[in-house]
Amino acid sequence: MVDEILKDTQMEADRREVALQRVGVKGVELPFQIKSMADGHQTVLATVTLTADLAHRFKGTHMSRFIEILEEWRNRPVSGHEVREILQQTKAALKAEIAHMDIRFKYFIEKKAPSSRRKSILGYQSVFSGTMQGGTFDFKLGTEVPISTLCPCSKAISAFGAHNQRATIRAMVKFVPGKFVWIEELAAMLGKQGSSEVFPLLKREDEKFITEQAFSNPKFVEDVVRDCVLELRKDARVRWFEVECEAEESIHQHNAFAYQMETVQR
Amino acid sequence: MVDEILKDTQMEADRREVALQRVGVKGVELPFQIKSMADGHQTVLATVTLTADLAHRFKGTHMSRFIEILEEWRNRPVSGHEVREILQQTKAALKAEIAHMDIRFKYFIEKKAPSSRRKSILGYQSVFSGTMQGGTFDFKLGTEVPISTLCPCSKAISAFGAHNQRATIRAMVKFVPGKFVWIEELAAMLGKQGSSEVFPLLKREDEKFITEQAFSNPKFVEDVVRDCVLELRKDARVRWFEVECEAEESIHQHNAFAYQMETVQR
Amino acid sequence: MVDEILKDTQMEADRREVALQRVGVKGVELPFQIKSMADGHQTVLATVTLTADLAHRFKGTHMSRFIEILEEWRNRPVSGHEVREILQQTKAALKAEIAHMDIRFKYFIEKKAPSSRRKSILGYQSVFSGTMQGGTFDFKLGTEVPISTLCPCSKAISAFGAHNQRATIRAMVKFVPGKFVWIEELAAMLGKQGSSEVFPLLKREDEKFITEQAFSNPKFVEDVVRDCVLELRKDARVRWFEVECEAEESIHQHNAFAYQMETVQR
Amino acid sequence: MVDEILKDTQMEADRREVALQRVGVKGVELPFQIKSMADGHQTVLATVTLTADLAHRFKGTHMSRFIEILEEWRNRPVSGHEVREILQQTKAALKAEIAHMDIRFKYFIEKKAPSSRRKSILGYQSVFSGTMQGGTFDFKLGTEVPISTLCPCSKAISAFGAHNQRATIRAMVKFVPGKFVWIEELAAMLGKQGSSEVFPLLKREDEKFITEQAFSNPKFVEDVVRDCVLELRKDARVRWFEVECEAEESIHQHNAFAYQMETVQR
Repeated sequence: MVDEILKDTQMEADRREVALQRVGVKGVELPFQIKSMADGHQTVLATVTLTADLAHRFKGTHMSRFIEILEEWRNRPVSGHEVREILQQTKAALKAEIAHMDIRFKYFIEKKAPSSRRKSILGYQSVFSGTMQGGTFDFKLGTEVPISTLCPCSKAISAFGAHNQRATIRAMVKFVPGKFVWIEELAAMLGKQGSSEVFPLLKREDEKFITEQAFSNPKFVEDVVRDCVLELRKDARVRWFEVECEAEESIHQHNAFAYQMETVQR
Repeated sequence: MVDEILKDTQMEADRREVALQRVGVKGVELPFQIKSMADGHQTVLATVTLTADLAHRFKGTHMSRFIEILEEWRNRPVSGHEVREILQQTKAALKAEIAHMDIRFKYFIEKKAPSSRRKSILGYQSVFSGTMQGGTFDFKLGTEVPISTLCPCSKAISAFGAHNQRATIRAMVKFVPGKFVWIEELAAMLGKQGSSEVFPLLKREDEKFITEQAFSNPKFVEDVVRDCVLELRKDARVRWFEVECEAEESIHQHNAFAYQMETVQR
Repeated sequence: MVDEILKDTQMEADRREVALQRVGVKGVELPFQIKSMADGHQTVLATVTLTADLAHRFKGTHMSRFIEILEEWRNRPVSGHEVREILQQTKAALKAEIAHMDIRFKYFIEKKAPSSRRKSILGYQSVFSGTMQGGTFDFKLGTEVPISTLCPCSKAISAFGAHNQRATIRAMVKFVPGKFVWIEELAAMLGKQGSSEVFPLLKREDEKFITEQAFSNPKFVEDVVRDCVLELRKDARVRWFEVECEAEESIHQHNAFAYQMETVQR
Repeated sequence: MVDEILKDTQMEADRREVALQRVGVKGVELPFQIKSMADGHQTVLATVTLTADLAHRFKGTHMSRFIEILEEWRNRPVSGHEVREILQQTKAALKAEIAHMDIRFKYFIEKKAPSSRRKSILGYQSVFSGTMQGGTFDFKLGTEVPISTLCPCSKAISAFGAHNQRATIRAMVKFVPGKFVWIEELAAMLGKQGSSEVFPLLKREDEKFITEQAFSNPKFVEDVVRDCVLELRKDARVRWFEVECEAEESIHQHNAFAYQMETVQR
């Protein structure tokens, strides 16, 4: 066995007495299967960070084991539950107390145009972020929802028109134990909080609908975040959230921004 | 029909007498199916630009038609031949003389570690770039191949060791009509031109192999590009290429770079 | 002298008979001084590519000489004329026939808000791109101008409002020998071709002005590019240009795009 | 006065009862003056986030005031003390309880090559991150230090050579009240913890020095972070830190990573 012949530098004793919180691999790109709400799954391009803590007495971790675990899981549909399994396996493989994983990916959801009902798919940049410490599993779901915002001030002060722009709602959510919120649900809930939704495919009748809807529904980034906060508080499955809205102001080169983090009393 | 009632601003006459070369959609992200060499296909995250020329007499193009075409094609496995079909369809849908498309995606290929033969998959950022002008189809395949380079100068002047680093070979290739080179073939050809290949999963015996191979095979970016040039000239299917190597020098914060473009006499 | 003792690997003979077109450094970040139109200069963060060709008989170039040249020039105000000098010096230092340089940087120009006349500065991503081949100097100036576009179709079909968004005009320009166009001039010329300009600092009266101006001046990306084309053709100093407009559509997650390249008959 | 005539939508009453933690501007790019350790300052390209909290009773914040404050400060040399002043001014201008600011910029420091003593400048991506809550000022300084790491395992198991690569140390530091650590000091302290430092300009004698130094000083990312931890604990001015090392492994396409966060008992 080669591994018995070749020196295992990582297993050498370390005398600095510094236990490390996170050691592992970052920026690993590979296809992954993400479970969808409708009982199937989709293939995504994932960018993964996977780490474990390192006891003070060891010089280094075994980096190839993280890749072996990811190779093993890349063809098995994954959701929150499977992130837990991956982290348990990581803890065991690395003889660690803590394991942490981030899987970032663009997840696609079919949308129907508001008037023509024409279908197209929209991508939501999403993340599963899990930590397993001892027997405790902490999980966050994140997603980014593209919307459009129309400025209430611009509408109020102008004789006609109102500036509007592409904006993004970003949310991270922790659930009550035993509950799970799907990306589909989070995206639908948040996507309604802008001046209007966005769609890849819009025919003229849809463009008319969206233009008029946005003009009838002006919102600052502050309004968007407040309305998201109210929705997130209402969902009995959510026990903590972070939500922000960043609007790519069409009259500036910089962005307008609002942010809120809350632990929800249940 | 709503489209008959709502004004078609795009079809209005334009009096500026400026025909435009490329008008369309850019930064469209959606999953696509890419044909693989071994008679299957893989799902990728594609970023697409799709454009057509616009006659001087029309005010605007119909942007939603580009998205309809992409929606129609996203579940049908695509290679060079299908890019041609997409462009013909685009020309017809937009009543255009010229259509152009870029599909950029990360394509994964299984690699075996050099000694342990352990398998893992490596991503190659790739592009299909096609232009259809009248009846003429011009197609370029591009890919980026991660390699490692070890500096010949550093090795020659130092008592021991030699600096080495991650480097990328980027190639764009045009083929002789009727021929096609697969990403798998291009990646394999170019991947051998560094000091050593790179792999996601390496056990200690593989790390030893690669370290020694790179040290025995020092190469400047100039060497890498020259060796790529010789390989590309040799392949009878290649009639034009552009190839570069960019090395993320481990002793600097900037990169070393070499580049060559050639039309090959066949 | 150490350099006489240490082996000069780069100067070794190369037998592959492949002369290389571009060899040098890429991604070099350093502060640079850019000459301004008003007889001063501004300090920018530059990202530089500097290359020379390499004769077939030499194994490698001397990478450190490129950095020495950049170090020498980083405190001397630079415009098109100085790019020529840098390239001549590069050719001499590397004993090369061809030298090429790209300096990319964000250049700031003061703007006055349209109604309040309040001042603020806006950044324009710009590039000086020069090639010296034998005694011939080829120079391109590029800049990116942020604007706002308001959709003519959306305005025409909707009962009220119209979607609008941040957009970018990107232009590359070659001049008639002996002429020079300043970034300030190019930015001013192109910045007027959107539905409205953008500004970092706008008070309410300015926001009203811009909102109404954009609504009164709807433009597709096609309109923006056509109007830029007409302006660029009119400027007697311009002999070639490339111009595009990319609009971050507020109703989509993808962008609308138009592009034109022309050699101007003078 | 226009501001009295035009409706102030932002000041309207809001009935959702949601006070927001952070509202303001993000992605503002402008030149800034950063104070240097040696009693001068340098011009940088800054990317700024500036926010304030928003009481539940107001519909929106006044976004233009953030830009006015930044315009006022962009020509005045800034360090930690001035971040405090900017935040106090922001709180007053927005009638807020909390203000927060991030200024991100590339800061350049002159380095001397180890053997030739040739000078060149290296850029360190840095951040000033401040929060003012009531009368309490919380400040973090962050910087990214490029280094080179050489793999101890690769060296131990290989007959010759060892893989090495560009790596980055990223640190965020909080100081004991009344103390300040300069970017120059933090960069110097951390820059010594790799296998070797990196430099923009190296002559052959320097390349020999660095190659041999790195080979004599192999380090995993774990070693780099542990040695940084020991140095940061030793500095009596540091009361909290976060430090990580990410190595762009030359034998992989993904990165090796180690991370630690500590509150230091003083």
